[in-house]
Amino acid sequence: MIPAAFRDTAEAAADAAGAVIRPLFRSQLLVEAKGDASPVTEADKAAERTIRALIADRHPDHGVIGEEYGETNPGADWVWVLDPIDGTRAFVTGRPLFGTLIGLLHKGVPVLGVIDQPATRERWIGLSGQPAEFRSEFGGTPRCRPCATLAEAELSCTSPDMFDAETAPRFAAAKDAARRTTWGGDCYAYGLLALGLVDAVVDATMKPWDWAALVPVIEGAGGRCTDWAGRPLRLDSDGTVLAVGDRALLPEISRLLAG
Amino acid sequence: MIPAAFRDTAEAAADAAGAVIRPLFRSQLLVEAKGDASPVTEADKAAERTIRALIADRHPDHGVIGEEYGETNPGADWVWVLDPIDGTRAFVTGRPLFGTLIGLLHKGVPVLGVIDQPATRERWIGLSGQPAEFRSEFGGTPRCRPCATLAEAELSCTSPDMFDAETAPRFAAAKDAARRTTWGGDCYAYGLLALGLVDAVVDATMKPWDWAALVPVIEGAGGRCTDWAGRPLRLDSDGTVLAVGDRALLPEISRLLAG
Repeated sequence: MIPAAFRDTAEAAADAAGAVIRPLFRSQLLVEAKGDASPVTEADKAAERTIRALIADRHPDHGVIGEEYGETNPGADWVWVLDPIDGTRAFVTGRPLFGTLIGLLHKGVPVLGVIDQPATRERWIGLSGQPAEFRSEFGGTPRCRPCATLAEAELSCTSPDMFDAETAPRFAAAKDAARRTTWGGDCYAYGLLALGLVDAVVDATMKPWDWAALVPVIEGAGGRCTDWAGRPLRLDSDGTVLAVGDRALLPEISRLLAG
Repeated sequence: MIPAAFRDTAEAAADAAGAVIRPLFRSQLLVEAKGDASPVTEADKAAERTIRALIADRHPDHGVIGEEYGETNPGADWVWVLDPIDGTRAFVTGRPLFGTLIGLLHKGVPVLGVIDQPATRERWIGLSGQPAEFRSEFGGTPRCRPCATLAEAELSCTSPDMFDAETAPRFAAAKDAARRTTWGGDCYAYGLLALGLVDAVVDATMKPWDWAALVPVIEGAGGRCTDWAGRPLRLDSDGTVLAVGDRALLPEISRLLAG
């Protein structure tokens, strides 16, 4: 059982990060930066400092791993894993689907995750062993849908440019077998899978802060989130990430992604 | 000068379409349809009927061309061009960036356009010869930014799967010369160009209802929206569409897209 205080911390951290991030979104500063991500990095850093201060205050014995400020006490039983702005390219180009990711590992296993959308003010919350929760003005129910074969699956991937010579043909095999592929989305695509609107998401070169928050949300909605081989995601995972809404889909797609 | 009543009609039509479309977005019906677009087609049709009835009532002598119900009086001086749900794949997968497009041609030339986002409730309005307008909770200013070379341009494209053997290498030449490419977006990407957050958008296989509303918005924000060869978009255009935020970018990118 995850202490209720940890969930309160995660939500408070998402609130605080959103307040730091929102003023920069679509600001004149970004227009003038012309695709240069440095102003975003500043917002990313400021939001991570805010979250870290909040965690240090409430849970001084917990560890933290963040995209911008690295590791603090990573050997602790409870370790927070943070990405204040997931989807930097989306943010830079004004797309409101970037997200703030706040995950918590217990002895290396993802047990709590918040996927927060500062612009659209949507929020997914996942706690190990509990049904996922979701809040949005746009509607949606946090429950994956049945889809047992790739031939009927709606596949999503952030970008065709994220694969290298080794992973590109393996991704292509899965894409060719899927019913259809939609592009873009970063963490948002995983959120849509948790709403039963997408059946599989495949990405590569993902860091722990890209996936830690996703796992409890997806599993709480009835899906699975693993590496391409179907193994649980851990801090030493290889960067490949595969999410399926229907667990029955996992063997077929991970076999294709194995190459 | 476009009569003010025509702009009122366009906005009223977007309001009416949104009211028809919103209830279906992320509905259980779509979850159960599992990627089948038929429920969306029903919403698309219902919204187009609503818009057509409104236009027929206010401007009985105007023509209409719509994605779902074809042409009515297409030889009229004023012809409305409609796509109630642009971005069907986005809609089906729960992404809130699909749009309602309402364009008006005067003697074949796009002179008025509304890009409306029913989910996020953002709206771009373009009227020939006037500055573009934009309303959004997320912020943004309807003015394209300077960007005179492709090497510094943020490029956007809806999907790498939209090109054929003939257009793929031409697109690849432009993509390779661009600073970076982001994927997904449909009409939303053109809206972001009009906010100075994207510098070029390249798509293919576009129908008149996909581009008619975009042209006055982009031109009202200081950009240009043409075919790949840089020619004005007309009803007999070849389906290629190129938008640039900085008119100085047009020769370089259209030369690459010409093959």
